[in-house]
Amino acid sequence: MAKPLLQVALDHSDLKGAIKAAVSVGEEVDVIEAGTVCLLQVGSELVEVLRNLFPDKIIVADTKCADAGGTVAKNNAVRGADWMTCICSATIPTMKAALKAIKEERGERGEIQVELYGDWTYEQAQLWLDAGINQAIYHQSRDALLAGETWGEKDLNKVKKLIEMGFKVSVTGGLNTDTLKLFEGVDVFTFIAGRGITEAEDPAAAARAFKTEIDKYWK
Amino acid sequence: MAKPLLQVALDHSDLKGAIKAAVSVGEEVDVIEAGTVCLLQVGSELVEVLRNLFPDKIIVADTKCADAGGTVAKNNAVRGADWMTCICSATIPTMKAALKAIKEERGERGEIQVELYGDWTYEQAQLWLDAGINQAIYHQSRDALLAGETWGEKDLNKVKKLIEMGFKVSVTGGLNTDTLKLFEGVDVFTFIAGRGITEAEDPAAAARAFKTEIDKYWK
Repeated sequence: MAKPLLQVALDHSDLKGAIKAAVSVGEEVDVIEAGTVCLLQVGSELVEVLRNLFPDKIIVADTKCADAGGTVAKNNAVRGADWMTCICSATIPTMKAALKAIKEERGERGEIQVELYGDWTYEQAQLWLDAGINQAIYHQSRDALLAGETWGEKDLNKVKKLIEMGFKVSVTGGLNTDTLKLFEGVDVFTFIAGRGITEAEDPAAAARAFKTEIDKYWK
Repeated sequence: MAKPLLQVALDHSDLKGAIKAAVSVGEEVDVIEAGTVCLLQVGSELVEVLRNLFPDKIIVADTKCADAGGTVAKNNAVRGADWMTCICSATIPTMKAALKAIKEERGERGEIQVELYGDWTYEQAQLWLDAGINQAIYHQSRDALLAGETWGEKDLNKVKKLIEMGFKVSVTGGLNTDTLKLFEGVDVFTFIAGRGITEAEDPAAAARAFKTEIDKYWK
């Protein structure tokens, strides 16, 4: 079982805040995400800034793309995004167009991740695999968490099933150093944390604490 | 039956192109949409520019928001968006948070529209109504249209059913002056056109042609 990667999500509403957070923690993580909230506020300039600051890190544009996949993927890939997210309710043609566009710009490095929100089915998931998509992101939505939901057995079973199907599965939503151990024994591809890292008093130390937990449970 | 509104979608990848299109056609339409592609490229500054150019028009931020509904809605509402879209796979807490935030900023004018992509059910649609959401947008996705799909009886029946349930329903995707008549007798709330208007040789004339068709079939 490979060691899970650590991804920091920059979900600021302003470019300065996102860049400050990225600088404080970027070298400690494997993947740096231009979050949806921030992309919708400042546009893909954020991706370009992150690419220039961190030429060797994986940069994700969390566009949650629902349509016009080719255009959105190209717009972000030319600015340096390696991975881009599509919402699970996007059509297969949208996902295929996004995958084609990101691979045209980024080569083998370019990948599309399907964001699992709301109701989706394993039948749909198989169609994503058939379309060449190899990554999925399993969420607890921020708003659902605020409404009191938490990680449980049903979530873990879905994550495991997706991994068995052949996806590299990232997990996200309210993760902290106490909750990582819930996934022990599960071949998680990437843990994604946002404010659990960026809002910590010492973000770099918080990222290292996540890494220490990962090292403890995935050897 | 009220006369359907006409909405122009600005789906440019650059601010200058979007603004040029808005200026050329904004006065001819009822609703001006900051499209997803453009928002992801340039951020919500586009909304602010549109609000300043067209103080009396309805401005839509087509964020296709999937999470963090309160933050995204506030970010766009403070810049002048009256309506904002949520993707149908967003959770109910996300939609409720978005609705609350947009109404806090825009009062009665503030509304959330659910974007219908992929698989959704009437049971889910009822939950959106119960959450206070009163608008839905029925699509042919751009990529699906490119893959050869078109408007048909099954689409019209879904639109009618949503209207019967109590939604104000907008329709979009590959609309032109020839396809509007397909909706004759249907209480469509808004017709949304993008490049069918903005890429016309004379965008203002194209918008007026849409209006003429609407006047012909909805008296």
